Amino acid sequence: MALIVQKYGGTSVGTAERIKRVAGRVAETHNAGNDVVVVVSAMGKGTDDLIALAADVTSNPYPREMDMLLTAGERISMALCAMAIHDLGVPAMSLTGSQAGILTTSVHGQAEILDIRADRVRRGLDDGMVVIVAGFQGVDPVAKEVTTLGRGGSDATAVALAASLGADVCEIYTDVDGVFTADPRVIPDARKLDEVSFEEMLELAGAGAGVLMARSVEVGRRYKIPIHVRSSFHSGEGTWVKEETMEEPIVRGVAHDSSEAKVTVHGVPDKPGVAADIFEGLAGADVLVDMIVQNVSIEGVTDISFTVPKASIDRARTIAERTAADMGARGVDIDSNIAKVSLVGAGMKSELGIASRMFRILSDHQINIEMISTSPIRISCVVRGDDVEAAVGALHDGFQPPASPTEE
Amino acid sequence: MALIVQKYGGTSVGTAERIKRVAGRVAETHNAGNDVVVVVSAMGKGTDDLIALAADVTSNPYPREMDMLLTAGERISMALCAMAIHDLGVPAMSLTGSQAGILTTSVHGQAEILDIRADRVRRGLDDGMVVIVAGFQGVDPVAKEVTTLGRGGSDATAVALAASLGADVCEIYTDVDGVFTADPRVIPDARKLDEVSFEEMLELAGAGAGVLMARSVEVGRRYKIPIHVRSSFHSGEGTWVKEETMEEPIVRGVAHDSSEAKVTVHGVPDKPGVAADIFEGLAGADVLVDMIVQNVSIEGVTDISFTVPKASIDRARTIAERTAADMGARGVDIDSNIAKVSLVGAGMKSELGIASRMFRILSDHQINIEMISTSPIRISCVVRGDDVEAAVGALHDGFQPPASPTEE
Repeated sequence: MALIVQKYGGTSVGTAERIKRVAGRVAETHNAGNDVVVVVSAMGKGTDDLIALAADVTSNPYPREMDMLLTAGERISMALCAMAIHDLGVPAMSLTGSQAGILTTSVHGQAEILDIRADRVRRGLDDGMVVIVAGFQGVDPVAKEVTTLGRGGSDATAVALAASLGADVCEIYTDVDGVFTADPRVIPDARKLDEVSFEEMLELAGAGAGVLMARSVEVGRRYKIPIHVRSSFHSGEGTWVKEETMEEPIVRGVAHDSSEAKVTVHGVPDKPGVAADIFEGLAGADVLVDMIVQNVSIEGVTDISFTVPKASIDRARTIAERTAADMGARGVDIDSNIAKVSLVGAGMKSELGIASRMFRILSDHQINIEMISTSPIRISCVVRGDDVEAAVGALHDGFQPPASPTEE
Repeated sequence: MALIVQKYGGTSVGTAERIKRVAGRVAETHNAGNDVVVVVSAMGKGTDDLIALAADVTSNPYPREMDMLLTAGERISMALCAMAIHDLGVPAMSLTGSQAGILTTSVHGQAEILDIRADRVRRGLDDGMVVIVAGFQGVDPVAKEVTTLGRGGSDATAVALAASLGADVCEIYTDVDGVFTADPRVIPDARKLDEVSFEEMLELAGAGAGVLMARSVEVGRRYKIPIHVRSSFHSGEGTWVKEETMEEPIVRGVAHDSSEAKVTVHGVPDKPGVAADIFEGLAGADVLVDMIVQNVSIEGVTDISFTVPKASIDRARTIAERTAADMGARGVDIDSNIAKVSLVGAGMKSELGIASRMFRILSDHQINIEMISTSPIRISCVVRGDDVEAAVGALHDGFQPPASPTEE
């Protein structure tokens, strides 16, 4: 008998039929003798519909009320799931984030989980119930205000709840079969990975693999909760994200990310503090900077390039231009037609020559590299946006990530 | 400066445009120097949509989860209202029933308000905010479970909140102009009433005037909170429901109700306890009995007739038939094709001959009377369902309720 946290995303609970299928799987897991906690997202496009409703009312929704509004989405799906599970003869109870003791910071729309006081969840489990918890939401314990957790929030709820309860596994049910050696929409012969380490998954998430966000992986890693990413449409095994994996391949997967733009500040005087000026300003405006490259200084001036989410591009431009003017730099360029392609693999730590092989493969395909950044287990290159599919294909071919074939 | 509770029904907040119109009215009331608490229902068909969703998942929704589901409806409308009000530069905050301290019994779907601990509402008002409260919902303070209040629940929330806060008035905004001398859909020249006493409104509500339910009127009466029923589509005055009215007309209005069916138990042995047997059984099955008539006993047996909501007819039949068999009665008849027509007016208390005039008018129109029941300020007759519009028309013509003409 195990304690299992199962998280079902919006697609998995998108219709009444799918909710009943989820209920069947939950009931099966419960009837096999396990304690089950279920975390659900809002139904399908439920959150988008609520956002559209707010947009009809105001162009500038007040953040506190936006959270009040959006939390209705999981409330609906969790209640329907509880009814469906109940219908199968399994006692079930739904709890909002607040009721489940998901305590967060007070930042509406982007709160972070501070602590979980899961007393009601535990009482429910002790009473033999399946407990369904609303993902993506919590409560600021000081002001008693309802908050939402932002992107990836339901996964974060599930993994944090698993950690708090000391669960044996956190299962993330989704509309894909698991984590792949590359995005299957780009690389049709990409293969499902049976397992991947927390470290690798963190790098893959940061490099654009959308299936699991870094914030959830990080909690799993810290509390050693294995995460099983799997399909809600069939019962085959997905991908286990865990501390140790059987092997440490040099390249676990090829990830890409087209969601960022490149900002270049030209002719920056090369003196102490200029980088700090730029990036303090960006941090102060909540612009998330990913890669940063500073060229070698020539005649006392240099160029600094960095990537930011395309969604933040206006704020980034304003700050970069102001800072550039203040420091006497020559100007600011924005380039939105870029993409990042990355190799990730724990085996890289002890293997030489991966970077040079990567650069060679890209150059053999006439793909120009504009920026490079590395970690011990990752190499990322920024290329032209139009080149990204060719780059992923060439690297996936060239490195052949050694994953077991999927069963489907 | 006054403390005003405004309640907006589902139609009034049915679209983004209407929510903005509501916000405009709220802001205007606030900017005129009043403290404003707003109670909202779910948007338009929001609750029906949620009920339909539940029906897609299960034919027998678990009541606790049904309440969890339905409370999402007001959560959505209240957040949108708060955003819209905020947009007009008026600080606003929405609160769920639970956050607003609406403490109820534990009966899911039909909870009753026990007490209101409106500390957060008061704090919001003290901070100069408009406070928007979800209607129709509350929390069972012992189990900390979310509850809903059943039909008319949002009005009940508004009037109870007005009572608890000591408000100067509770304004019920709706899609009609107020309380009419008869249902304007049946009697086109029915006139809007400027005022009506709590007593009369209680009788009108019980007699089928749908604009305000008895449970809300009763709270207003008990705590002496004037209720102003008015249109959310224009700013004209509606109907004031209050303790004392300027005049006490003999007939304030003609109400009718086609939602009930008549049950007759034939050949009941006329001995003590038989009526108790029947009606205890019905009460135990939560069947709400309205009119009861027992005929004069002939040769030791009598007939007992009563009316129940058509929705309860199956339960009523089962219980009546079982009780009839137990007591040796001859049998049970159910008649769904009936309607009740009522005259209501505080002046009846001191006026003779109203009943006989009523019976004469009906008989002049060849309308047969099947049951009669009276209170000091009401006379109700059960007639054939097909006769109800003719009966209302004849009585409205015959008694000419003296209301001032509407301004529209």
